[in-house]
Amino acid sequence: MPANASYPEAVDRLIASLRELPGIGLRSAERLAFHLLTADPNEPATLAQALIDLRQTVDHCSVCMHLTDRGKDPCAICSDPKRDRSTVLVVEQPRDLIALESTGMYAGLYHVLMGRLSPLDGIGPGELTIAHLIDRLDQPATDERPAITEVVLGLNPTLEGDGTALYLAEQLHNRQLTVSRLASGLPSGSELEFANRAALAAALHGRQRVGPS
Amino acid sequence: MPANASYPEAVDRLIASLRELPGIGLRSAERLAFHLLTADPNEPATLAQALIDLRQTVDHCSVCMHLTDRGKDPCAICSDPKRDRSTVLVVEQPRDLIALESTGMYAGLYHVLMGRLSPLDGIGPGELTIAHLIDRLDQPATDERPAITEVVLGLNPTLEGDGTALYLAEQLHNRQLTVSRLASGLPSGSELEFANRAALAAALHGRQRVGPS
Repeated sequence: MPANASYPEAVDRLIASLRELPGIGLRSAERLAFHLLTADPNEPATLAQALIDLRQTVDHCSVCMHLTDRGKDPCAICSDPKRDRSTVLVVEQPRDLIALESTGMYAGLYHVLMGRLSPLDGIGPGELTIAHLIDRLDQPATDERPAITEVVLGLNPTLEGDGTALYLAEQLHNRQLTVSRLASGLPSGSELEFANRAALAAALHGRQRVGPS
Repeated sequence: MPANASYPEAVDRLIASLRELPGIGLRSAERLAFHLLTADPNEPATLAQALIDLRQTVDHCSVCMHLTDRGKDPCAICSDPKRDRSTVLVVEQPRDLIALESTGMYAGLYHVLMGRLSPLDGIGPGELTIAHLIDRLDQPATDERPAITEVVLGLNPTLEGDGTALYLAEQLHNRQLTVSRLASGLPSGSELEFANRAALAAALHGRQRVGPS
């Protein structure tokens, strides 16, 4: 007997839909469904409207592949005349871009790969926006669009991020480009004794000279 | 600067809606929103439809207050002629009913309180379906509807559940009723050494005679 043998059909259907979401199991889906049943009736209606609008009003920027409002292409960053058009920072996901952008420390452009190479999950170069990045780098410079001279690889310091960075570095080889990668090491404000081995190894490997040279 | 400074408006709105749900913080809401953006387009549409249908097709049974399809009142349990109409098991939430029902061990009727007494959260007897339960118990017996002779309190063995059970037991006093409560103690299949103090105390207090009497 299924655990939810006697829920009304619409409740079962909502629970099934919620379970499709990542990280939501049966118990969470039931809890969310009951919350939505008993909450202010506007709450499920607002969420439903947001879901409907999502695919209808959100698009990808044709330049950097970041999310943008439909009809606003290129996106706000790509069309901002104050940004440095000679540098492109490559990230895996839109939220990586948002995180970097929130530092206020980067004034160049971005490129969103929409994932990372993951052969075990069947994600190869063709599933990412790598070809599009290379097209972008190979476009001849114009008056409005100077040549791109630096590519910063902003991939996560994980096994798959490292693999993707390596692959991209190979693909970008033999071009008039500086290719760099975001520094990896001890997180600022952390204590050495609590760092994991990978962070310590990265910190040792990337050690930088200090003091009078 | 907000962390999601440059999401399109519809993505921001979806993240805000998801954050209203219990147990969903900013990071989870972002992860869910990106999943919905990149998943099969049917997935957000199906979820949106389930949310819209929820309030339009689900109602409460006028007898036991359990969830039922609109237009199917009394619910399947209350209108099942094979159920024992002389016993009512009182639970806090529809999912408690579902859990008990899934054991297949109970053949009586239910009453869903739609919560438990929680003075700190402003939930008093008026917020629950207690008056409705008492009306139900006080209805004179008819040929189709025999008198209710036993009320089983199926409240959670928690502080608030205990308080609610105590309150109900007082309210039901002085009626021709057997009032009982679900046994509390060591969970079946568990090991004594790992039981918490409350479970051990309940098990000691509710100890039952075994062997030849």
